[in-house]
Order: sequence, then C-alpha cells, then structure tokens
Amino acid sequence: MLKPNTIGIGVVGYGYWGPNVVRNFSELEGAQVLAVCDMSPARQKAVSAKYPGVEVTGDFTRLLNNPAIAAICVATPVRTHFKLAKAALEAGKHVFVEKPITETAAEARELIELARQRGLVLMVDHTFVYTGAVRKIKELVTSGELGEIYYYDSVRVNLGLFQHDVDVLWDLAIHDLAIMEYVLGREPRAVSATGISHLPGKPENIAYLTIFFEGSLIGHVHVNWLSPLKIRSTLIGGSKKMVFYDDTQPSEKIKVYDKGASLSDTPESKHQLMVSYRTGDAWIPKLETTEALTVEARHFLDCIAGKASPLSGGEAGLRTVRILEAATQSMKQRGQPVELT
Amino acid sequence: MLKPNTIGIGVVGYGYWGPNVVRNFSELEGAQVLAVCDMSPARQKAVSAKYPGVEVTGDFTRLLNNPAIAAICVATPVRTHFKLAKAALEAGKHVFVEKPITETAAEARELIELARQRGLVLMVDHTFVYTGAVRKIKELVTSGELGEIYYYDSVRVNLGLFQHDVDVLWDLAIHDLAIMEYVLGREPRAVSATGISHLPGKPENIAYLTIFFEGSLIGHVHVNWLSPLKIRSTLIGGSKKMVFYDDTQPSEKIKVYDKGASLSDTPESKHQLMVSYRTGDAWIPKLETTEALTVEARHFLDCIAGKASPLSGGEAGLRTVRILEAATQSMKQRGQPVELT
Amino acid sequence: MLKPNTIGIGVVGYGYWGPNVVRNFSELEGAQVLAVCDMSPARQKAVSAKYPGVEVTGDFTRLLNNPAIAAICVATPVRTHFKLAKAALEAGKHVFVEKPITETAAEARELIELARQRGLVLMVDHTFVYTGAVRKIKELVTSGELGEIYYYDSVRVNLGLFQHDVDVLWDLAIHDLAIMEYVLGREPRAVSATGISHLPGKPENIAYLTIFFEGSLIGHVHVNWLSPLKIRSTLIGGSKKMVFYDDTQPSEKIKVYDKGASLSDTPESKHQLMVSYRTGDAWIPKLETTEALTVEARHFLDCIAGKASPLSGGEAGLRTVRILEAATQSMKQRGQPVELT
Amino acid sequence: MLKPNTIGIGVVGYGYWGPNVVRNFSELEGAQVLAVCDMSPARQKAVSAKYPGVEVTGDFTRLLNNPAIAAICVATPVRTHFKLAKAALEAGKHVFVEKPITETAAEARELIELARQRGLVLMVDHTFVYTGAVRKIKELVTSGELGEIYYYDSVRVNLGLFQHDVDVLWDLAIHDLAIMEYVLGREPRAVSATGISHLPGKPENIAYLTIFFEGSLIGHVHVNWLSPLKIRSTLIGGSKKMVFYDDTQPSEKIKVYDKGASLSDTPESKHQLMVSYRTGDAWIPKLETTEALTVEARHFLDCIAGKASPLSGGEAGLRTVRILEAATQSMKQRGQPVELT
Repeated sequence: MLKPNTIGIGVVGYGYWGPNVVRNFSELEGAQVLAVCDMSPARQKAVSAKYPGVEVTGDFTRLLNNPAIAAICVATPVRTHFKLAKAALEAGKHVFVEKPITETAAEARELIELARQRGLVLMVDHTFVYTGAVRKIKELVTSGELGEIYYYDSVRVNLGLFQHDVDVLWDLAIHDLAIMEYVLGREPRAVSATGISHLPGKPENIAYLTIFFEGSLIGHVHVNWLSPLKIRSTLIGGSKKMVFYDDTQPSEKIKVYDKGASLSDTPESKHQLMVSYRTGDAWIPKLETTEALTVEARHFLDCIAGKASPLSGGEAGLRTVRILEAATQSMKQRGQPVELT
Repeated sequence: MLKPNTIGIGVVGYGYWGPNVVRNFSELEGAQVLAVCDMSPARQKAVSAKYPGVEVTGDFTRLLNNPAIAAICVATPVRTHFKLAKAALEAGKHVFVEKPITETAAEARELIELARQRGLVLMVDHTFVYTGAVRKIKELVTSGELGEIYYYDSVRVNLGLFQHDVDVLWDLAIHDLAIMEYVLGREPRAVSATGISHLPGKPENIAYLTIFFEGSLIGHVHVNWLSPLKIRSTLIGGSKKMVFYDDTQPSEKIKVYDKGASLSDTPESKHQLMVSYRTGDAWIPKLETTEALTVEARHFLDCIAGKASPLSGGEAGLRTVRILEAATQSMKQRGQPVELT
Repeated sequence: MLKPNTIGIGVVGYGYWGPNVVRNFSELEGAQVLAVCDMSPARQKAVSAKYPGVEVTGDFTRLLNNPAIAAICVATPVRTHFKLAKAALEAGKHVFVEKPITETAAEARELIELARQRGLVLMVDHTFVYTGAVRKIKELVTSGELGEIYYYDSVRVNLGLFQHDVDVLWDLAIHDLAIMEYVLGREPRAVSATGISHLPGKPENIAYLTIFFEGSLIGHVHVNWLSPLKIRSTLIGGSKKMVFYDDTQPSEKIKVYDKGASLSDTPESKHQLMVSYRTGDAWIPKLETTEALTVEARHFLDCIAGKASPLSGGEAGLRTVRILEAATQSMKQRGQPVELT
Repeated sequence: MLKPNTIGIGVVGYGYWGPNVVRNFSELEGAQVLAVCDMSPARQKAVSAKYPGVEVTGDFTRLLNNPAIAAICVATPVRTHFKLAKAALEAGKHVFVEKPITETAAEARELIELARQRGLVLMVDHTFVYTGAVRKIKELVTSGELGEIYYYDSVRVNLGLFQHDVDVLWDLAIHDLAIMEYVLGREPRAVSATGISHLPGKPENIAYLTIFFEGSLIGHVHVNWLSPLKIRSTLIGGSKKMVFYDDTQPSEKIKVYDKGASLSDTPESKHQLMVSYRTGDAWIPKLETTEALTVEARHFLDCIAGKASPLSGGEAGLRTVRILEAATQSMKQRGQPVELT
C-alpha cells in the first residue's frame, strides 16, 4: 500500500548492487519500495526476509502494470538495461538505471528520446558523482579555483573480478568517465586506447585510455584487474592549483595544491625553459560523508518532482557510452585514434 | 701523469650530471680522470678548485689527442652526443655516453658499428640499471620467480623543469625504457603514444606511451612535468608474483607480492569468470645501496678490460631510442600505432 | 526451542558491542541465542526485529532461570560485570564477559574462584587476541623467530569518545594489555603511569603507561582520546627480528624486519659502541581474515565442550585488571612506580 | 687574514657535526672561519684539503689567543663542553656550543653567569629551532591559532648508534626538549621517566619521559635506539586546532587539523560525555627550506652585533639540561616523579 505523498518505486535486479538501491530507497523520506523483481529464488527469499511488506516477483510486467509504481530502478546486467528501461519508459515510469546506461550509444539515444517524449526522468546511477569528494572537486573546478584545467589523470587498478562479457574499460573506466564528464563538463573530441587480455579469447583486463578534448585539455584512465595493489588515485592539473584525489584513504581523500608553473620563455636560456615554480600551502578540505547513493536517490526524487534536473541524466550516460564505444574500437587497433563526432 | 695500471679518463661536459661522472671516476680504483672539457669558464673554475691535478680545457681535441686518455665520458646535451662520441671512437677511445645515446636511431647504429669495427667499448649511462632496486627486479624476472611477465607499468611525474628542445618522453620516459629494456630483455613490436603541450609551440609536457611486445606482454609509461606530487612507481605483473617498485621511498623500495589470479573458465558461471585469487605473503627484499654510478663506472672499466660486456651497451641505447623515435611519431598522430621493424 | 546438540546462549546488554555478540553466536554452528536481556525498550525492539525467534526481556533472572541456557554473555557497562557474571556462575552458567573483566582485581579473583569451584568456563572478551594479526605475532614470539623480546611499545590514539566514568587507560589501554598479556606471556613486576585530564574533575583523557617485566623486557602504552589522527601502531623489538603492527592498514598490517643490533663493546672505540647493524629483508605475512569475534565465539564453545582452555580466561582478565589498578594508582602520583606483587 | 667587517670564527671539534658548522660559517656573509682545532691528524688533514686558507691546529689555546677570533664554536663531545666554553668566555670570545650545553645544570649556570658578566653571547646549537617546520609551529602556537595547548607528544626512534657514555635521553630527547622549550615557552614543573638498557652496565637505549607543566599541559617524549623503523613524529593538541609534524617526510612535514572536542557534560547521558566533535579542513603550510644551521649561524652573528638576542641562548640550554638531569634521576627510580624547582 503506497503511503500518501510518496513515490512508489519498483526495483529490478537484486544481485550485487540492487540491495543497496532497495535499502536506500526504503529508508528515504518520500519514497516507498513497492516491488522487487529478480528471477533467482534465493534472492527473492532474501528480499522477503529483509523487507516483509514488499512484493517480490520474477515477473517484470507486474512492476510495469502496477499503477502505484511511478519509478523503476534497473539494477540488472548491462546487456538487459536497454530492454528493461525502454519497457519502463513506455509504461510511463521514471527510470533510474545502473551504469553504463546501455551497451551502445544508439540505445542510449533511443532511451533519451523516449524519456523526452513522455516527459519522464531518465537518470543513470553514476554513483561517484554524488560522493563528497567528487562534489568538492566539481566545486573547485566550477569556481575557477584550479584555473584552466590542463589534465585529468586517473588510475583504478586492483586484483579484481575478471568479467566474462565486458572488458576492463566498461567495468572500471566507466567510473572515471562519469566523474570526468561531471567535473569537467567538456566535450571529448577523440580517444586513443590500448590494452591487452591475458586470458585467450576473453576481454581485455588491462587498458589505457587517452581522451582528447578541445584545446590542450587531456584525460587519461588506467584500469587493470590484475594489480597487486588497490589504487584509486586521480591527479587534476590546473593553471592555478592542482588536486590529488585518493579514494582509498579513509579520510583526507582530497588535497588541493597551490602549485604550478608559469610557463614563459626566458631569453637567457636558449635550451631550457626555467619554469617559474609556485609551491604554496596545500589544503585538505573537509568532505561531506553522506552515502553517495542516499544523496543520489534523494536527487532522483527531486527530479521526479520537477525540482531539479539530473546531474547524471541520459545525456551524461550517453557521453560515457560514446567514449567507451570509441575506446573499444581504438583498442582493437592498438591505439588508432577514433574521432567522436 | 697517469698512475700505473689505471685507465685514463677524459670527461666532456660538466653541467648537471658531469660532476657526478667526474667524482665517481676520480674515486674509482683503476681509473684516473686526466682531463675535463667544458666551454663555460665558471664550470672550468669549479673543476680546478675541486680537482687540482686535472687538466681543464675548453678544447675537446685536447682530450682526443691525449694518448694517456683511453676512455671518454660524454656528459653534454643530447644533440651533441653523436658528434662527440663519434670523434672519440674515431680517436680510438672507449666511450661512456649519457642517455639517450643519440637523437636518432640511425646515429646510434653508426656509433655501434664504429665501436664494433674498432673493437672499442660503447656504453650508455642507463644509471637506473645499476641501482640495487632494478638489479633485484632483474633477478626476480630472470630467475622465473615472477613467472611469465604480463605487464610493466610505470609512472614518473613531478613538478619538473620544462625542457626547451626535447619532450617529456625523451627527458623522463627514457629512464623507464632503459629499465624495461634491461629487466624484460624483450623486443618491442609497436608503440602507441599520446601527449599534450601546455605551452604553445613547445614540446609535450605530459605523455602516455604504450609498448606492445610479442605475446601478451604490454608496457606503459606515464610521464608528466606538471604534477603536484612526485611519483616514481612501477608495477610489474607476472603469472606467479607481482612487484611494486616505489623509488621515492628511502627504504622498502620494492615489495614482492605472492598474489595472482588463476584465470580459468568456470562452467557454473556463464557471465563472469571467478578468478581464483591467490594472496600470500609479501616480501621486502634488502637492496644493495652502493651508488649506482659507482657500480656502473666499475662495470665500464671491467668492459674495457674485457672482463664483462656492457649491460647497457650501444644496442641497449639504440633500442630505447627506436622506441622514443616511434613514440614521437605516434604522439604527433594522437596514438596511431607505429611498428618497430 | 533449543536445537539438538547446540549450546543455548543468553546475552545481557545490547548496546555498543552486544549486537556483535548476538550476531556471532547466532550464526555459529553449535550455538543458539535463546534470550537477550536489555532494559531499553528501543533496544529490545531492535532485537525482536532482527531475531524474531529470540526471547527479549528486561529481566535478567529469566536468563538465569532458563535451564536451556548454558552460557551467558555479559555485554553491559563494566561496573555491572561482576554482579551479572557472579549471578550467572552461581546459576551454573558458563560466562563470556566483556573486557575489562571487572572493576577490581578482587572481584576478578572472586569470579575465577567461583568458576573453578563450579567447573564452569569463564572467558573474557579480549577480542584482539583472536585477530589474525595478533595470532601471527604470538606465533612469531612463541616460535623464537623474534629472539629474546626487548620491548613492546603501543600507541592507540584518536579523536574519541570521552568516557564519563573510566579513564583512557581502562577504555583503550585494556586492548594493548590484553594483547601484551597473550603475546608475551610474561608476568609484569611494576608499573609507572602518567596522564592528564583536560576536563576538570573528569577521568584522564591522555595517559602513558610503562610496564616493567623481569629482566630487561619493557612495555609501554600511549593512549589519547584527543588526537587529530587515528593511530594504532605497535613496535615489538626482539634480539633477532622486530615487528611493526599497524592496525589501521586495511592490508599489510604486520611487517617483520630482519633487523637488529649486536651489542658488543669494541675495544677500539672507547666512547661509542658501534652496534653491528643487521638489516636484511622484511616480510609481510598473510593474515587470517576471519572476524575475530567469530573465532573467539567458536573457541568459547570448544572450551565449554572441554576441547580447549580459554586463551583469554579469567586469569588473563585478572592480570590486565591488576595492571590497570596499579596504573591508576601510579597515575594519581605522577608516575610513582607501583609494584605488582 | 680577517676580511674587513667580518667576525672571525674559531671552531673546536671536526667530528660528526663540526664539518657542518665550519661549512656554514665559511659560506656566511659577515663571518670568516680563521682556525679549526681538532686533535685527530686525519681530521686536520680533511680541514686543510677543503679549506686551504684556514689555520688547522691541535692546540685550543691558539684559538683563545688569536685576537682576530671573536667567537668560538664548540663541536666536541658533551663532556668537554663546559671546560672549552668556559675557557672561550674567559678569553672574551662569544660562544656557540653544541647541545646539550653541558653535562650538568650547575655548569650551564656558571657559563650563563660568565657570559652575562663579560657581555658575551652564549648560544646553544638547538638546530631544530631554526628549521622551517619548528618555526611554523612556534608561529601557530604564539598566534593563538591552536588555542590553549593541551599536550606535546613526540616519538624519535630508529636503529641508531648506541652511545657509550650518554643514555638515549641525552642523545635523542634533547632535540624534543629543545623544540618544546622554544615552541611552548612554558616552565616544566616535574618529570617522570622510565627506560631500560639492553646491554648490561650500559646507558638506557629506550626511554619514556613525561613532563608536567603548570595547568593541564603535558609533554611526552619516546626515544629508542633499537627500532626497526625511523619515526620522527610529533602531535600537538590545542583547544582550537592540532598539529601533526612528521619530520621524515621530504615535504608536507606539517599538517594543521581544524579538529577538536568541546568537552561539556550532557545532562542526558549520565555515564558518557558525548564530545561535540569538530572536524573541519586540514591545512599543509608551506615551509621555509633554508638549511637550519644557516639560519642559526646568521642569527648568531646578529646576536653578536646586538641586533637580536638568542632564540636558543644559555638559559634555553639550561632548561633542557635541568629536565635531562631530573629525567635521569627519575629513570633510575622507575618513574618516581622529580620536581623541577
């Protein structure tokens, strides 16, 4: 039974991430999880045990046909995103879909168009965008504190699960692309990617991706499922300040360096530019610690209520998928650049 | 006056690195620095003050014509390496030349051929090869302790001097290429490089370089003159063990991880490979701490005496220059792969 | 209803740590939590929601009088430990009590004697003793790998809760004392403690405790509720090897250093002993990662079954309380040593 | 020959630290090292080779009798400080003496009185006081930015030289006492120290020292010659902010935390004080990087010229020696507190 003044939520997929989605929307003022759909009996049982009042089903159409459900969260494997999200939109439901939004840019475009036509919210779960750390970086970029952005360099490696059907870019680099998309707000022009698989016939488990933006902004992502160390570190260089973001730290995740180099030719030195170094104080800003998915779920409700538009909407999802598509193509050709037109 | 049973050494170039070369050969049993050539009066004065017995000159031919000088160390800017090293070899002197050996592979080939014809030692100062850390890594690779090598990934970034005439690959990646060349002992097949300059018309100050080897071995180097942090870290993944090498640490530079993933398809799991993780002990080997240049200078004397052949000879220098040449070409085309034939 | 071949468990106290106790015994093969006692209605409700089959009560006598309950876990504030544990033992129940075992050594002795008379197990929850890290250290000490132990030095500081009724030694140092007691297995002879309170009339929030053992073994603990950093680090020096244990690390918690100093007079040097340094490899052992409380709960069942005797029994609890009592006395006198007879 | 407008310097002792003293005064505008006295022929030779124009002697009276020498630096073992410094003062020379100033407080008092009578500068080489890091901490304390200071806690341990004639407090803790003396500017009231020797009959190689100040300020120093790790870290807690100072870091030595706890009783919670935590930004101030001894030597000249009075004068030296004397006494009695009257 839907409580008054709440938005009824249906969730499809209760595997790795689904439980977090259900938990967050369950605890959120103004939302109520009415039904969870998963085909696995074990998972259905897990939902029932934890959420006695929630309908549990293996039949997705029950969510589509439930008029009390206004929004559907899609937390299934990526190959099913398009079909499920499309059906949800066609049934008039707002959609919150896991990243990457779809397997192809064409599919993402179709979902965006559908949502536009029906006036529905289409939001991708780019979770990192809602962390205190990334929001702080966005603030530093937007306010001009970093100056002109020169580069964005990210490393995301660990001894990780080898995926069967997607390569390491689609599995890990998607996080960095989502962050970069949000923080930089700039259109990429071309990509070059290289990588290798260490399991014959399987997707690449190490990859390097360069993203060219207009001007002299460059992005780079290094992802690896076969690293002895877990590294989650990002360097962002600006003309005024630079940021180091280390997501493995329990605290002090972000350091802002008042460091830089004024790059000017000096007439005296013909063969070397003495950069005029600037090394001032550094600063470790305090970060918001609310769980990112909580912030994001609340934002989704605000978007449905017309009070906000998605920070990670369909267009953001599309932009990351376009880069991944181009990267896959480039990687097959050992770094051959691929234009993003 | 040359002492008995010693090898007379001439050094050309007393700028950034030359003083270290002079100091090391001066303190070495079996060698004697007889003359130092540099055109700057200030530097000449510095030599005289510190080494009263050594001839100081601005005329390189005095070194060439001194019959007591058996070997010449070339510590000048790279654009002069070829000319000076060639003259030295033609004068019958053994040559110890700073890295990179020459500006082009063609020049390197000419020096190698000349040294071969004259029966002279031609050695490149790939200093890192002679550090305790890199020698330990070489030992781990050669002994098979790491198993089959999967990847070599290196990051070498800091707020550094912007060079006027060479890009960041020629300035910094040369170190990693020299190490990789020595440690892996494998022929690269192709490279893809990307990079950017933040000073219009000047060489790239950030670059990313992928090196493809035969089989599934991949190398990658990230270099940057505009980083707020100094990072010198290398990950080497093998089928049995993995190495993390952090050159910024005063001690504990190398950690050997008994970690890995047995990559086998599991019939139960259609869409995901559960890697069978192996995470055992890690190990921090004690490293030799003799100054690398001391080890290297001694090795150069041994090579002259016919007791060893250079660990970093002309061929090693050539291989690194070939990669840099190809990388420069690839970088101009935003990652377009370049074959090394 | 008690399942066959299981030990019925009652838990008193469902505040900070109680929920962990209930969860662990609930999930343990061979045990069944039959009843939880807490006086707070909110906590009672929390138990009911999570453990529908478990009796919830505010009346401790219901646990004492329940013949199906063979063992009682006391997870209440320390000032109630003695009374509750005593009642449980008198009712013929085995007892698992939070640390510190009691407020005074006299009380601890009474519980030990009672348990001995009734043939019941009395175990103190010295949780750290059951972690993979501490068990590994114990193994290194016991096997002689560290040689003769010279010192045990521990720092346990953070921005922590100021306790109202106990000082920082009773709150934090108890952990180190429990570890030291287990790892060293040596009788302390005397203590000296200093400390200060920064809240007038309240217990000390910073304290330093030296423990003298027989011979030249020394222990020291530094605890502080008012530190900007969280530090949990322990150095253990032996004549052969030394251990660094950093409990804040997610992995690599323990490093074993093959380092030391052979301390011998040298006749040449009258005013200085040149220690003959030994600095070999270091080693990062892999650690068991099973939750400590799970290991401990299983061990409690084994003790009840007569298959083991407690690693952290009443005597261990008594030894730590004796040190705390003496430390409190010494601290009041600004470090005046107090003998432990 | 003394240059015009310069102060003639004599240095006695050219062992471990003396070379740094000679180098710094040699390179200093306004000073000229005229003579160095050391009894070892090898060291005399080393001085001659490096400083051709400087008189080298084994006879200290030559320095005393040289009218061109206005100031004498005493860089000999501590047991000779008093005799040499006294002779220098009596000969009318200003004195710069290594730490600790003397072996006893009585001797220090005698030197202070002598310098006062003669109107000479008496300065102790408390080098750390002149580092960028310590000067920054002093500034933070003095400006009130940290609020009321609650504690000063320092750890200074490593695998170090075992001294023959002084214990680890006199060797290592002296650094912390000198810093504390300068930074806090507060009179200590009593000390309690504990320690142990691991070489029978030799001085203590591990020690713990608590210093009680008036009010609720407490100081603590932990020193150890037998640690596998080199640790140089200091925590300073204030009512407003807190400082972490890690001297082993090449950069980012100091972090200032806007963290604290407002300590107020809460009526609701009888048995626990909920501290109201404050955790704001942290800040890594840029530090001066001029070599400390250079800053200090310049300051010594300024003091001689009457333009400044010593930041580390005889009184500062006396205060540290008084603490060391009391600490030695306390340590012999296993922590028995000793008043500083």
